[in-house]
Amino acid sequence: MKVVLLAAGRSKRLKPIEDKIFLEFMGKSLLQHQLETLAESGFNDFIIVGGKHNLDKIEKVCDPLPYKIHLVEQTDLNAGQAGGVLSALEITQNESLIIVSSNDVVEKDAFKLMAASISDDLDGAIVGKKVSKYFPGGYLSTDENNFITGIMEKPGEGNEPSDMVNIVIHYFEDGNTLASYIRNAKTDSDDKYEVAVDKMIKDGMKIKAVPYDGFWQPIKYPWHVLDVMDFFLSKLEGIHSEDAEIADSAIIKGNVYLGKGVKVLDNAMVNGPTYIGDGSIVATNGLVRNSCVGKKCVVGFGTEVARSYFGNDVWTHTNYVGDSIIGNNVSFGSGTVTGNLRFDEKDIEVTIREQRISSGRNKFGLITGNNVRSGVNTSFMPGIKIGNNCCIGAGIVVEKDVDDGKFITGSWQLKEYENRLDISKVYRDELKKKIA
Amino acid sequence: MKVVLLAAGRSKRLKPIEDKIFLEFMGKSLLQHQLETLAESGFNDFIIVGGKHNLDKIEKVCDPLPYKIHLVEQTDLNAGQAGGVLSALEITQNESLIIVSSNDVVEKDAFKLMAASISDDLDGAIVGKKVSKYFPGGYLSTDENNFITGIMEKPGEGNEPSDMVNIVIHYFEDGNTLASYIRNAKTDSDDKYEVAVDKMIKDGMKIKAVPYDGFWQPIKYPWHVLDVMDFFLSKLEGIHSEDAEIADSAIIKGNVYLGKGVKVLDNAMVNGPTYIGDGSIVATNGLVRNSCVGKKCVVGFGTEVARSYFGNDVWTHTNYVGDSIIGNNVSFGSGTVTGNLRFDEKDIEVTIREQRISSGRNKFGLITGNNVRSGVNTSFMPGIKIGNNCCIGAGIVVEKDVDDGKFITGSWQLKEYENRLDISKVYRDELKKKIA
Amino acid sequence: MKVVLLAAGRSKRLKPIEDKIFLEFMGKSLLQHQLETLAESGFNDFIIVGGKHNLDKIEKVCDPLPYKIHLVEQTDLNAGQAGGVLSALEITQNESLIIVSSNDVVEKDAFKLMAASISDDLDGAIVGKKVSKYFPGGYLSTDENNFITGIMEKPGEGNEPSDMVNIVIHYFEDGNTLASYIRNAKTDSDDKYEVAVDKMIKDGMKIKAVPYDGFWQPIKYPWHVLDVMDFFLSKLEGIHSEDAEIADSAIIKGNVYLGKGVKVLDNAMVNGPTYIGDGSIVATNGLVRNSCVGKKCVVGFGTEVARSYFGNDVWTHTNYVGDSIIGNNVSFGSGTVTGNLRFDEKDIEVTIREQRISSGRNKFGLITGNNVRSGVNTSFMPGIKIGNNCCIGAGIVVEKDVDDGKFITGSWQLKEYENRLDISKVYRDELKKKIA
Repeated sequence: MKVVLLAAGRSKRLKPIEDKIFLEFMGKSLLQHQLETLAESGFNDFIIVGGKHNLDKIEKVCDPLPYKIHLVEQTDLNAGQAGGVLSALEITQNESLIIVSSNDVVEKDAFKLMAASISDDLDGAIVGKKVSKYFPGGYLSTDENNFITGIMEKPGEGNEPSDMVNIVIHYFEDGNTLASYIRNAKTDSDDKYEVAVDKMIKDGMKIKAVPYDGFWQPIKYPWHVLDVMDFFLSKLEGIHSEDAEIADSAIIKGNVYLGKGVKVLDNAMVNGPTYIGDGSIVATNGLVRNSCVGKKCVVGFGTEVARSYFGNDVWTHTNYVGDSIIGNNVSFGSGTVTGNLRFDEKDIEVTIREQRISSGRNKFGLITGNNVRSGVNTSFMPGIKIGNNCCIGAGIVVEKDVDDGKFITGSWQLKEYENRLDISKVYRDELKKKIA
Repeated sequence: MKVVLLAAGRSKRLKPIEDKIFLEFMGKSLLQHQLETLAESGFNDFIIVGGKHNLDKIEKVCDPLPYKIHLVEQTDLNAGQAGGVLSALEITQNESLIIVSSNDVVEKDAFKLMAASISDDLDGAIVGKKVSKYFPGGYLSTDENNFITGIMEKPGEGNEPSDMVNIVIHYFEDGNTLASYIRNAKTDSDDKYEVAVDKMIKDGMKIKAVPYDGFWQPIKYPWHVLDVMDFFLSKLEGIHSEDAEIADSAIIKGNVYLGKGVKVLDNAMVNGPTYIGDGSIVATNGLVRNSCVGKKCVVGFGTEVARSYFGNDVWTHTNYVGDSIIGNNVSFGSGTVTGNLRFDEKDIEVTIREQRISSGRNKFGLITGNNVRSGVNTSFMPGIKIGNNCCIGAGIVVEKDVDDGKFITGSWQLKEYENRLDISKVYRDELKKKIA
Repeated sequence: MKVVLLAAGRSKRLKPIEDKIFLEFMGKSLLQHQLETLAESGFNDFIIVGGKHNLDKIEKVCDPLPYKIHLVEQTDLNAGQAGGVLSALEITQNESLIIVSSNDVVEKDAFKLMAASISDDLDGAIVGKKVSKYFPGGYLSTDENNFITGIMEKPGEGNEPSDMVNIVIHYFEDGNTLASYIRNAKTDSDDKYEVAVDKMIKDGMKIKAVPYDGFWQPIKYPWHVLDVMDFFLSKLEGIHSEDAEIADSAIIKGNVYLGKGVKVLDNAMVNGPTYIGDGSIVATNGLVRNSCVGKKCVVGFGTEVARSYFGNDVWTHTNYVGDSIIGNNVSFGSGTVTGNLRFDEKDIEVTIREQRISSGRNKFGLITGNNVRSGVNTSFMPGIKIGNNCCIGAGIVVEKDVDDGKFITGSWQLKEYENRLDISKVYRDELKKKIA
């Protein structure tokens, strides 16, 4: 059966993080992870719907993979999910197919359950995530046999028609029928696809809910990268070392993956679950814990990296980087610190498309794009975003987001006096005596 | 014999440190320490003179203790020591009693020597601390049989009538007589009690000096907390662990007490004499030395705590805290540093009630009240005091004391330019080659 | 044979580093190193040409040395090398002699090769450094028998007359002849000496080139101190400890020299080649690598010293000091960092006598004179020079060189508000639960 993977989204809310499907987790792009998870669940015939902005890169990811993959361009990116699905259906026949969102991360089980649910007498099926408390998404109304009777968007706490939230893993017995319903759907909003599916149900088609209660995390906001990272890290088992050089005094604990040529220097520590990519170094007195570090990174002397995502070529040196998402080719001057906690320990807000949005985390640090430098002793406030190609000067406190391509420095109005203090050796020697 | 413990002082010179008698050293309030020391010296019948401001709290401390304790309120706190003693004498008969200051910390020996000196033929006795160099206090003039002939306040160096300084551990054979002398004492200053005792001597009463040359430290100024801390730490012997979790790579040296549930993580070090209270953590690469850390504290990654007093719930993270006195519920952002040494290494001054007073220490750091937060990379100058309920922003240098309830931030006038530097990967790769 | 050591230079381009010949490398002044190297090559009869500014100090260095040494004052310091040589020749006869620059550091081989080259039929000889790529110095033109036919100053790449650059290790068969040529040399520039030698060649005298391809580094600019340091460090072999106290958990790797009474505390690391002078301490979690540390220094807690030169009495504490040259009696507050890398990783420039000169290094840090203090969390930009007797305040970023005797502070315009945040314990406890 064909799987339509919707991948044309532009990741606007993730800025400065680039296209989410190319974010690497543990050495592989999210797109590759998704395809592999689907393949392990029995699917290996894909139509990937991309856009002009990412089709080339999608092709590069797919090229070496051993699956049957058709790439399709969605030309009108404003047409949303409905547009994406229609683009895919242009190259299919009267086939049955499964529609999957490329940036909803789930366990393999979600696909397996779907596969097992498909039967001849069904017109469709939709995976529903079983939730234990209210979630602001689309709820599936079902009858006693789990047939869907409607989809209710954000019903409000207490009004949930069921405990199942709609996940974009949708089976349809006949693509052409779906296409026709989408084309005829009438709506002024961005919900043409949902309206079409609702009409199918209202017309008596049999669409079943497939209950699933495993991990599910769409990557919509930057902090979701950390949720997904934690998911992938949770897959690590034991200590795996691709011929890493580990100093005798270094400490490796928990579930840890060390890539090819990784070096863990003296008195450094890696605390799992943690992934460290090929060619990276954890230097003397460094600590990495619950983090995903890319390739050719340096966790420098006396640096702590905690619960953070690093792209490739990230260099740190005597830093604290906590609960942060750092792009590729980034380096922090010695003493740069990412604040990750408010004084009042309330949840940290981030500015997303000019709105303050709560991250739902009371520990959240820095987000950077690619090609970023910070100076020595620079301080970043929690939830700050630094764009691509930025230099952030030494010793300053960054309290506002920085756009792509900026150079930020402090206004150091230093005062110069004659030095009237006696700083000769006399005192020092006395002090030393006291200490000794 | 009854002991009158004078505890109505308001600790004005200690601000923002609260009432000194409740300061906890090694898990017990100073008040409890004093009562226990007296009990070990054979005294267990107490009259504690408190004020409206602290009697409730005194009661809470005393409740679980197995001693006979009467609480008395001194209503006129401006009446000083004379007022305190009179308050106590209202509930006594023609008894003999010992008057003790609650905030003069001494060895058990001081009380034992006093107990041994008491005899029927004496009207009173006063413990005198033998000093080897001039101390600005009250000196006891004595005859050849150690009977006191007068008390001389601050005679000036070279004019000392003896080598004994007056410590408030005073025995009187008859409380009523003392009360009557105090009531009749005539003076315009704050020395009614001393004038009364002097009159007793002049009237021929036999009051003996009890020479004592052990530890003695009144807590008058904030830095005295460190002196008293050192005294209590000097009592530690060997390594005592209440089922602490100590990582294999952690190092414990010297005389160290680790409370219940304490964790010492990898490559952390505790260097004695050091006390670490219940539930506290010394994290990876942390170092605590010659310090007293309260309950549920976190000495975070890469933090050094040296010669410092921590209350409960103090959280640090990549900090240096030296020669400092930190209240309860305080946390320091990563990179916050307490300066503790002048450039010229001279003794550090502190502003006490609007006057600059030398601490007599060339290493002295920060003093905070309770509920204080500092940001990342914040710098405190030596001898600075931060009041209760304060937030101190990131990256700033704090050169002045901060009153209770303030929020201090920097004026960051950052400049934003277009970034014209090429920070692409080319250079980085070359650099890496050079290093490798 | 007599060696004339030219040592009257005033090290102007090295400021604030004092007279280069007194710079100590691995416990000995450069002057002593030079004399010892010459002695090991068979020379022990010296004329040292100094100036009023350094002759006393030269005498102190020479006094305990077991060589025959005459000190000569060059009165006219503006007369340069010609003046220096003439001053020396005033006290010689018709002797042969070798002229050596005191601040060109070479292997012993350079002198040995010269000694072996001298023969009766020669009027002179000049050591030529064989170079593999263009070097902007004086090239020796030679005939097929290695006789010098001329000296060409900076011929430009591609125009080199040979692969040999002129090093000031010059033999002359007859001092009087040389003196006479120098006296008669006519030139308006600072090249009287070179003009004289050139005339000797043109007059048919036989002066041979002595090819040498070992280490050669003149100390002209501050960064050359690091080159020379590396040279001396490369001489270390194995681990040598003059009864140092090394904690069990400390790590010593590579070729390392630890002087008398050196202490390496717990979890500290010394990575060779590194020299640590008498009485110095590497404290807990400290790291010293590829560095030369003087006497009575403290590499404090959590400090990294990398590829740096320290004079005596340098105290650090939680610092990063990289690729830096630090004078005597210097101390850095906790959190002081020396930036040593540009954002664009290009070579770092230094201001030398009001001109920006490239150091040719993309990693280069701080240069300080003697008697310098920095505050906590102070940041130094790469290539900055701090003069003697300076105090640099806390928390600031130093972007410009500082002259001798200055006190630099920041303009901290802090804002004070009422604190409206609730920082009571409630949140903290919740947070702790989340973390645990």
